[in-house]
Amino acid sequence: MIEYREIETSRLCVFCEKVFASYGFSAEDSAIITDVLLRADLYGIESHGVQRLIRYHNEIRSGLVDVNAKPEIVHETGISAVIDANKTMGQLAGVRAMELAIKKAQAQGTGMVSVRNSNHYGIAGYYSGMAADKDLLGICMTNSEAIGVPTFGRQAMIGTNPIALAMPADPVNFSYDAATTVVPRGKLEVYNKNSKAMPEQWALDAAGHPSPNAGEVLQNIIKKAGGGIAPLGGVGELFGGHKGYGLGIIVDLFTALFSGGLTSNYVNITPGLNGICHCFIAVDYGIFGNRAEIKKRVSVFLEELRNSKKAEGQERIYTHGEKEAEIMAKRKNGTIPVNEKTWKEFGEIAAAQGVEFD
Amino acid sequence: MIEYREIETSRLCVFCEKVFASYGFSAEDSAIITDVLLRADLYGIESHGVQRLIRYHNEIRSGLVDVNAKPEIVHETGISAVIDANKTMGQLAGVRAMELAIKKAQAQGTGMVSVRNSNHYGIAGYYSGMAADKDLLGICMTNSEAIGVPTFGRQAMIGTNPIALAMPADPVNFSYDAATTVVPRGKLEVYNKNSKAMPEQWALDAAGHPSPNAGEVLQNIIKKAGGGIAPLGGVGELFGGHKGYGLGIIVDLFTALFSGGLTSNYVNITPGLNGICHCFIAVDYGIFGNRAEIKKRVSVFLEELRNSKKAEGQERIYTHGEKEAEIMAKRKNGTIPVNEKTWKEFGEIAAAQGVEFD
Repeated sequence: MIEYREIETSRLCVFCEKVFASYGFSAEDSAIITDVLLRADLYGIESHGVQRLIRYHNEIRSGLVDVNAKPEIVHETGISAVIDANKTMGQLAGVRAMELAIKKAQAQGTGMVSVRNSNHYGIAGYYSGMAADKDLLGICMTNSEAIGVPTFGRQAMIGTNPIALAMPADPVNFSYDAATTVVPRGKLEVYNKNSKAMPEQWALDAAGHPSPNAGEVLQNIIKKAGGGIAPLGGVGELFGGHKGYGLGIIVDLFTALFSGGLTSNYVNITPGLNGICHCFIAVDYGIFGNRAEIKKRVSVFLEELRNSKKAEGQERIYTHGEKEAEIMAKRKNGTIPVNEKTWKEFGEIAAAQGVEFD
Repeated sequence: MIEYREIETSRLCVFCEKVFASYGFSAEDSAIITDVLLRADLYGIESHGVQRLIRYHNEIRSGLVDVNAKPEIVHETGISAVIDANKTMGQLAGVRAMELAIKKAQAQGTGMVSVRNSNHYGIAGYYSGMAADKDLLGICMTNSEAIGVPTFGRQAMIGTNPIALAMPADPVNFSYDAATTVVPRGKLEVYNKNSKAMPEQWALDAAGHPSPNAGEVLQNIIKKAGGGIAPLGGVGELFGGHKGYGLGIIVDLFTALFSGGLTSNYVNITPGLNGICHCFIAVDYGIFGNRAEIKKRVSVFLEELRNSKKAEGQERIYTHGEKEAEIMAKRKNGTIPVNEKTWKEFGEIAAAQGVEFD
């Protein structure tokens, strides 16, 4: 049983900003990284929130992340760009790249920016949400270390490769953000901690057969001994696993192949280089007609889905982004639960960086 | 056991063209519709091939499809358009809309065309493939009659809503084409014919619980009595059903909501109106750099996936579009298997239309 303590959001924010400044990031950059990180906790996505601080700490200290990196645009048209992130923090690459995509969309109707040579950037939904905040459609994808196994394979070749899409709507934006694997790695870690058998179709053993053993699969992933997580749709083709596998390829297409960066199967295997790739797309949906009318139609359809008949025993049908918006409303000016392991790590980071913990 | 007979592809082509001409379509339009229809059979996708002739026959005769319709562009920018198909054949709306998207992509880097008030258009992959044939990235989506149930729901609200994406590659293009429901309706029909229990996670009964009974689910879909097919990822959230549900919404966004047409839950419910909506996107991937280099990188990655280690008992890992290309190579100048029921329907259509069957 993991213990949590409630920490004021504002206090966490100040602490994280101080920590990032201590590595040499500017105040502005420290605020950006912190905002992305905290947003995950505000959305209730603990796996991508402040519990990652120790990982970023280690990646910055080891040089995987270059604090002084200057991302550069290596190719550009009116509606597109390719950016070499030069090993900057993923959050900084991400925010700057989406800002560029938004600028292009505002001027030309759409902007598509593919980014190579970056690092982990937190939740994809943060960046698609940036576009929605500007009343645009936003799409964001990232590749990641290969832990997903192709249909009929037994070798991890593709990352969890999430796709996020945000579209303005009332009273709450549509905000999709999902790995193209059936589950993310974090789910296996939870099952492993609790010594619980995983559902069939989640993961494969070293021989490529379905495995209920989370600990073994995680070990095999780390040792690259074979097996890994199944694509969305599960093992084989019976439940559409080939569909999730294809979506994972599409993410590598937009992120790594368009940018000239590393595909998932090369991410995190060269010492000193993560090499993660992203893609950011913004579309002014006004290119399809009156913006207010389109937004109204979207809002009505989402409402119809939420109001449709519930399965026996269910009280609510969600549309994507609703759960996150509700948790954020509670936590934004309140507190965020931080688990004791993360809390302890905060102490270590604070000591190592000479930052005040309180 | 369904019996098949092998019919020369060229003979099927001539027959279909004559049939469509008999309804009043021009020779050019009859050839377009036939090409889309036959492509499904050439790809091995029987469900969307010439076995649909009887459905189109009925839709044309009943006025659901307007033979004399002239689709019109109701909104346009340099990179986008909205087309009202005015109840034309879906294949004609589809080919013309993708041609427009391609023209825009060739001139501006991208083209996005959303279409309302159309009809069933065959396989989505035909249209994304049109873009790939012009050395562009192609994306195509369509909504359809609601037979998919939202996560935690028991009412069909979303169509099978397939997404297709094609990207040029050697020796075979990447060509993804998949429903965002776990399976298409045709799969249930096969299980029903064979009185076979469906796998869990495919479909839901009228109360919203998983159902193995294909016949009952199909009856409920027709009667709109509740239940239907699960989204990709299955029933509930355990296997990611909310992800497939979200992808289905995204398809309605690009097709119906951007075009101002009917969302899935209104498709095929008004007498005399199907109201299906599509979206066609072409992107000149040269906006991300040297086209030859990008295509080479894509080809290499796909090859790495195919060459990665196979699961025990498996001999081959596919990339999307490979199976279809192989079947097409065999059938294009050869024969296509036509089942006896379809063959009999051909006779009825030929008689009704005064078209020679041979």
